[in-house]
Amino acid sequence: MILPNISIKDIANIINAKIVGNTDLIITGINEIHCVNKGDIVFVDHPKYYSKAIHSNASAIIINNENVDFPKEKALLIHSQPFTAFNQIIRHFQPLQHSLTTISPTAKIGKNTIIYPNVYIGNNVSIGDNCIIYPNVVIYDNCVIGNNVKIHANTTIGADAFYYKKHPDSFEQLETCGNVIIEDFVHIGANCTIDKGVTSSTIIGAHSKLDNHIHIGHDTKLGKRCLIAAHTGIAGATTIGDRVTIWGQVGISSGLTIGNDVTILAQAGVGENISDRQTYFGSPAGPAKEKMREVYALKQLVNLIHKLY
Amino acid sequence: MILPNISIKDIANIINAKIVGNTDLIITGINEIHCVNKGDIVFVDHPKYYSKAIHSNASAIIINNENVDFPKEKALLIHSQPFTAFNQIIRHFQPLQHSLTTISPTAKIGKNTIIYPNVYIGNNVSIGDNCIIYPNVVIYDNCVIGNNVKIHANTTIGADAFYYKKHPDSFEQLETCGNVIIEDFVHIGANCTIDKGVTSSTIIGAHSKLDNHIHIGHDTKLGKRCLIAAHTGIAGATTIGDRVTIWGQVGISSGLTIGNDVTILAQAGVGENISDRQTYFGSPAGPAKEKMREVYALKQLVNLIHKLY
Amino acid sequence: MILPNISIKDIANIINAKIVGNTDLIITGINEIHCVNKGDIVFVDHPKYYSKAIHSNASAIIINNENVDFPKEKALLIHSQPFTAFNQIIRHFQPLQHSLTTISPTAKIGKNTIIYPNVYIGNNVSIGDNCIIYPNVVIYDNCVIGNNVKIHANTTIGADAFYYKKHPDSFEQLETCGNVIIEDFVHIGANCTIDKGVTSSTIIGAHSKLDNHIHIGHDTKLGKRCLIAAHTGIAGATTIGDRVTIWGQVGISSGLTIGNDVTILAQAGVGENISDRQTYFGSPAGPAKEKMREVYALKQLVNLIHKLY
Repeated sequence: MILPNISIKDIANIINAKIVGNTDLIITGINEIHCVNKGDIVFVDHPKYYSKAIHSNASAIIINNENVDFPKEKALLIHSQPFTAFNQIIRHFQPLQHSLTTISPTAKIGKNTIIYPNVYIGNNVSIGDNCIIYPNVVIYDNCVIGNNVKIHANTTIGADAFYYKKHPDSFEQLETCGNVIIEDFVHIGANCTIDKGVTSSTIIGAHSKLDNHIHIGHDTKLGKRCLIAAHTGIAGATTIGDRVTIWGQVGISSGLTIGNDVTILAQAGVGENISDRQTYFGSPAGPAKEKMREVYALKQLVNLIHKLY
Repeated sequence: MILPNISIKDIANIINAKIVGNTDLIITGINEIHCVNKGDIVFVDHPKYYSKAIHSNASAIIINNENVDFPKEKALLIHSQPFTAFNQIIRHFQPLQHSLTTISPTAKIGKNTIIYPNVYIGNNVSIGDNCIIYPNVVIYDNCVIGNNVKIHANTTIGADAFYYKKHPDSFEQLETCGNVIIEDFVHIGANCTIDKGVTSSTIIGAHSKLDNHIHIGHDTKLGKRCLIAAHTGIAGATTIGDRVTIWGQVGISSGLTIGNDVTILAQAGVGENISDRQTYFGSPAGPAKEKMREVYALKQLVNLIHKLY
Repeated sequence: MILPNISIKDIANIINAKIVGNTDLIITGINEIHCVNKGDIVFVDHPKYYSKAIHSNASAIIINNENVDFPKEKALLIHSQPFTAFNQIIRHFQPLQHSLTTISPTAKIGKNTIIYPNVYIGNNVSIGDNCIIYPNVVIYDNCVIGNNVKIHANTTIGADAFYYKKHPDSFEQLETCGNVIIEDFVHIGANCTIDKGVTSSTIIGAHSKLDNHIHIGHDTKLGKRCLIAAHTGIAGATTIGDRVTIWGQVGISSGLTIGNDVTILAQAGVGENISDRQTYFGSPAGPAKEKMREVYALKQLVNLIHKLY
């Protein structure tokens, strides 16, 4: 994160830290160890990584020990909780929160949660602590978001179920009274859609991570620690187990049960239940070994026809 | 819909109704019969459903008959047009409309149409009556939206046609002068894109319902009462008949003609015209019966090869 | 573009032009020659097209020559640089720019670039000249957009890489320090997502054109003058050459190298490198000729089985 040019003394005041070393430093950014540039603040809280942090590109190091060697052009910021201090600086400078954001007066937002601009949060929505809701996310009424959740830009949580009753001349939409529940530590990519349940909840289990452009239908329950790649669509009222891996552009029909520890390969079209630990492939999808045999058999068939004619 | 805690007397004033029963009620919400909780208002206008409404979880019932038995802790709101009164309450409390919304001064918005925050409505756009435009929808210049249309969050109506002329070192974009016309009673899901026509209009026929993440290309005409599931993409200048059902992740090439009452199964890749009442499947797609025979033949081939070797 | 009813004299003042002909005209719009209606202004700067412009539906013609015949009910606006004058009028009336837009104070926006409402532009973002950023686009921190770029509504540039390290009970997200670089003359459709690089940049090469709903993963490099159709997803860290054409709903795995002048047909699932000038098809994808032989062989197999039984 870029900071406005700011003196190391001002930074020390913000986190109530003691400065050791170069007290004339001008700070221009704050980043984790993998991303630091000259002018940046970094933090370190474990002796194992002291040397790496001190000799990184960072100009200032938030550290819980002042008895360390370091280049004299740098500064140490001594603090008993470096990670907490690091987050304190980020929150201090975090730009633009809440401006242009629409939050219903009946919504509840937890501690340390960052809501970016142009976000819409409907009535009776609840969002936990330490979440990041990126710009232009829309969360419809009554949805429940846990703690430590990230939702990327332009994602829509809680739109209507795609559920219509056919009449001779029109379709009647079923009233949707459900919601979406997103459990703790879930990450949802950009431009995803997770529809609300018709009568119950659409659930994204704890620690699951979703890539971009993913669609989850109404009343579908996704287990814990699942990974889903981009453009996958899961229709309504399907139950998916824990630790399931779904690659890109997969389609899964409605009303199915997918077991635990299942892997579904890219572009598969799943129309049947899958039991635990299976790997599926193809459209229509089947066990990957069988489907790979079909791919191979088809190649042999071409060779055979070529020989015959 | 959640309401601020409000007395039944204030509700009765809003709709000009007589209260029968518990005049001390505090109302906390308003919902249709499928979704009611304690504290809610519900409505009923047909004797067949009086008992169901009265004995639902609702605490107050808008009803067109005061000669009915009901639990004494509840209240009846007597009104000759219960459904109209119900909608009147919803509109009275509908939160947040028009704030942070951008509507061109040349756009026309019909009666009882709800525009949520962060919506962008371009020049010369026309939107009919009784529509709901959810947050962060973008409607480009000159598009025409009928009556009773719903468009869900983060959908884009009227972006440029994907239409380029190839030059040796670059692509030249064709000027797009067309628009999008969305007819009455159409529902469009979240995060869809419907591009404007190059010279004419992209049309979504009356009563058609689109799920999420659907792409409709420039100048494509979709008929009436069609259903399209998520992630389907229809390229430009294709004509699709009435009552067509298209399942998820289907792709349809440009310039085709698809008849009436056609069904296209999930993940099909359609590259040819389809006549009325056909069911298509596969990539490349063909008549579903033929394609299912191919799926079966391939399984037999694997068995045959297995026996031979 | 629709204009408020405005006199031809006011228009002439805006561009400092001389009026020849009907000085009482009321102008109601401005459009290019392919889109003009009565009441519109058009421009023409080459004698070859003088007659076409003068006899189009346009009521006023910005032209660099006053010695031409024209219908007396029309007006000529004499200007040495008609195209520049045309753009000057458009910018004069362009509605609604920058209102409700969030632009970080550390972002840099070039000349003549139009930013529509509800756009979010993060810290340290740089956008070149003559760009159009349509409503509700989100550009994350540190991304770099060249000159003459168009980004359509609800597109997300620079969200986190989908990159997690598996732990026994959770996933750890890799910190992403990279960005997205979009080179000159790139067009990006509506509702696309281009993720930032983990350590380097995700790059969209000059003159490439992307349709809607496209996903480009972290650290992927797309070459120059590529065309990509809707719903295509390209995973992370893949390198794609110049002048590559990718049709709709294609999936490309991570870490691959695709050569120059490659064509990938619709719905292909690419899991291997492709050398220059190849055409690929199928899922899993292979050279199109081989794959088409497989499609044909399978049809023959069905006929054979039909004869045998």
